[in-house]
Amino acid sequence: MTASALAEQLADLAVALGANVQPGQVVTVSAELGLEEFTREIAARAYRGGAKFVDVTYYDPQLKRVRIERAAEDTLEFVPSWYGERVFELGRSRCARVAVVASTDPGALRGLDPARLGRDQLPAIPEWMAVLGERTVNWTILPYPTLGWARLCYPELDDEAALDRLTRDIVHVCRLDEPDPAAAWRARVEELQAVGARLNALRLDALRFEGPGTDLTIGLLPSSSWVGALSTTIDGLEHLPNVPTEEVFTTPDPTRAEGRVRSTKPLVLVDGSIVRGLEVRFEGGRAVEVEAEEGGELMRARTARDEGAARLGEVALVDRESRIGQLGTVFYETLLDENATSHIALGSAYEEAVAEDDLPRINKSGIHVDFMIGGDDVDVTGMTSSGDRIPLLRGGAWQI
Amino acid sequence: MTASALAEQLADLAVALGANVQPGQVVTVSAELGLEEFTREIAARAYRGGAKFVDVTYYDPQLKRVRIERAAEDTLEFVPSWYGERVFELGRSRCARVAVVASTDPGALRGLDPARLGRDQLPAIPEWMAVLGERTVNWTILPYPTLGWARLCYPELDDEAALDRLTRDIVHVCRLDEPDPAAAWRARVEELQAVGARLNALRLDALRFEGPGTDLTIGLLPSSSWVGALSTTIDGLEHLPNVPTEEVFTTPDPTRAEGRVRSTKPLVLVDGSIVRGLEVRFEGGRAVEVEAEEGGELMRARTARDEGAARLGEVALVDRESRIGQLGTVFYETLLDENATSHIALGSAYEEAVAEDDLPRINKSGIHVDFMIGGDDVDVTGMTSSGDRIPLLRGGAWQI
Repeated sequence: MTASALAEQLADLAVALGANVQPGQVVTVSAELGLEEFTREIAARAYRGGAKFVDVTYYDPQLKRVRIERAAEDTLEFVPSWYGERVFELGRSRCARVAVVASTDPGALRGLDPARLGRDQLPAIPEWMAVLGERTVNWTILPYPTLGWARLCYPELDDEAALDRLTRDIVHVCRLDEPDPAAAWRARVEELQAVGARLNALRLDALRFEGPGTDLTIGLLPSSSWVGALSTTIDGLEHLPNVPTEEVFTTPDPTRAEGRVRSTKPLVLVDGSIVRGLEVRFEGGRAVEVEAEEGGELMRARTARDEGAARLGEVALVDRESRIGQLGTVFYETLLDENATSHIALGSAYEEAVAEDDLPRINKSGIHVDFMIGGDDVDVTGMTSSGDRIPLLRGGAWQI
Repeated sequence: MTASALAEQLADLAVALGANVQPGQVVTVSAELGLEEFTREIAARAYRGGAKFVDVTYYDPQLKRVRIERAAEDTLEFVPSWYGERVFELGRSRCARVAVVASTDPGALRGLDPARLGRDQLPAIPEWMAVLGERTVNWTILPYPTLGWARLCYPELDDEAALDRLTRDIVHVCRLDEPDPAAAWRARVEELQAVGARLNALRLDALRFEGPGTDLTIGLLPSSSWVGALSTTIDGLEHLPNVPTEEVFTTPDPTRAEGRVRSTKPLVLVDGSIVRGLEVRFEGGRAVEVEAEEGGELMRARTARDEGAARLGEVALVDRESRIGQLGTVFYETLLDENATSHIALGSAYEEAVAEDDLPRINKSGIHVDFMIGGDDVDVTGMTSSGDRIPLLRGGAWQI
């Protein structure tokens, strides 16, 4: 597939299927500098679909580097008030949102002081978590292949081969190699929703993950329900928050997580830094020990950000049918890696996975950091309040 | 001069001399996509000077092209509310502002429907005129050489020679070829302020421009005063709004302009389109006829934007000592071309050039479009209310 055909097809997936942009909507698009061509393709597709305005913001990791290197220590947490106000206005205007996740320059922040780096959370804007939680925005995030990212995933290949390989990966996991990608996604969404329905029918009170280095029990809320692939705004617009998506997820009880967990893949923080070999111990829902072979300090800085940053906001199950998991590649990109295997997230929870009664109980935070804890050698078991233990995943395969 | 040395010296000029950035200030920087390297250099210099945060916005003319080509006609005037709110917040926070004027892609909007193009005023945000008028922001605009721009100025040269030539032009007009550029600017600013003081001492009631195709009389307000080079914020911060600057200007009476004027250089509108051979007839201060050899329709669309868009907001005098005028090059960029020769501007007026009593009388508009009307063959004469006629410029030389 040529680069322009890929851009066109991914833009179509983003606008028509992922964000489900409606005529008259403002569409906000975020991407790293270097993705201008793809961003314009998204804009063209959105305007063709009747968008009122396409509002683009670019993130420049090299500009962030300049800030971390030179700005005064006590200014590094500063975020101008209009960054958040803009997001609230986008929510009030019932915008659509497309976020492209693809690093063009993964080494941009290499070698910076982790403590200083941890203070600057941009380009993450906490107000997005609040606005997405209100379900006023139909949104999607999707990948786009770049050379910088391809080099990170495939350091053993030359530039051309690496980019070609990452492009093929993205074509495959986004199902653009299907005769009708939108129809393929509708079918996959139905499968994931059926899994969610079966899980909901079990009325689970908790989940237990058991594997090498992992024995973690996560409590659920009375109304925690399993959501697969599709979200719906308060205006009834269906959208796919993640393209690709392979998970079913729910919102756990932030006060009930006990035990240890070892990550099964590296995770990448929003600033591009990598955390490897993460091990976390939970007590009473709180991450009380956070260790890692690499990036532990950054991760601890994240979990110290606010009260909810050390508690869980998401638990997600992914089976071995995942196209991403099957590739076996580490993409160093949460969107893809989290859809490779089961995972949990520290920080902000999604309101849509609980009923109104439980809303005051879900976790709130300015962060949302997913990390992967599943795999073929991690058993996942459901537990009901009456003490039943129901195998959910064994060897990566659904048991329900 | 190497590209990186040039970027460093221009960034220094922008931050330290032009905007006069103070420790603790937020600095907002605007530039076209393609100027990332220079923008980061400005950010680095601003942080080194104690800036609290550097807020960068990029303008993408190709994204604008996508909008003009594809968006519904009735959406083209839409600007999201947060674009203006951000500017008001920047003003309230007493920010510093650096605007880089340099097209990286001057042909980006070529061939588009002028009527559709005229409806989309972005990246201009009218709120900036209001905020700059309040004098809460210390700001500067300055050029940076790009290949796309160099090709436009020097189509007869090959790429390398054209960029080299434009770079030398900018080094010269920005006085970076002086042993101490900042000192050279201080000296030039003093000269311009001295001219302004002599003009103020004449207590002129009107100006008359006479030359080929031009016989225009522009009335001044009782308190219209001539301002040169340096502006001062309400907090007392001196800054150079234009680098380079060669003009003295004042705010005219928007109800008193009579006669015809022919532009002496092409002008470039904010969208990059070029207006050549402009001829305007004024009656009672209003532009009642607007004709041009090229771009007349776009210019008429601008003057129809709002009530003040057909009236004058500025009159500026430039003598033949201007380094820009001496080069004889048409830069197709208002910042440089307007400092080549005397000019007037349709639209918004600067409050700083009148006393408080006259503030309600100055022109208000969402546009500010400068066009050049001076030259060696255009005489400029001052007229007092007692009927005296005082030669100001003859053959481009000051007579006072």
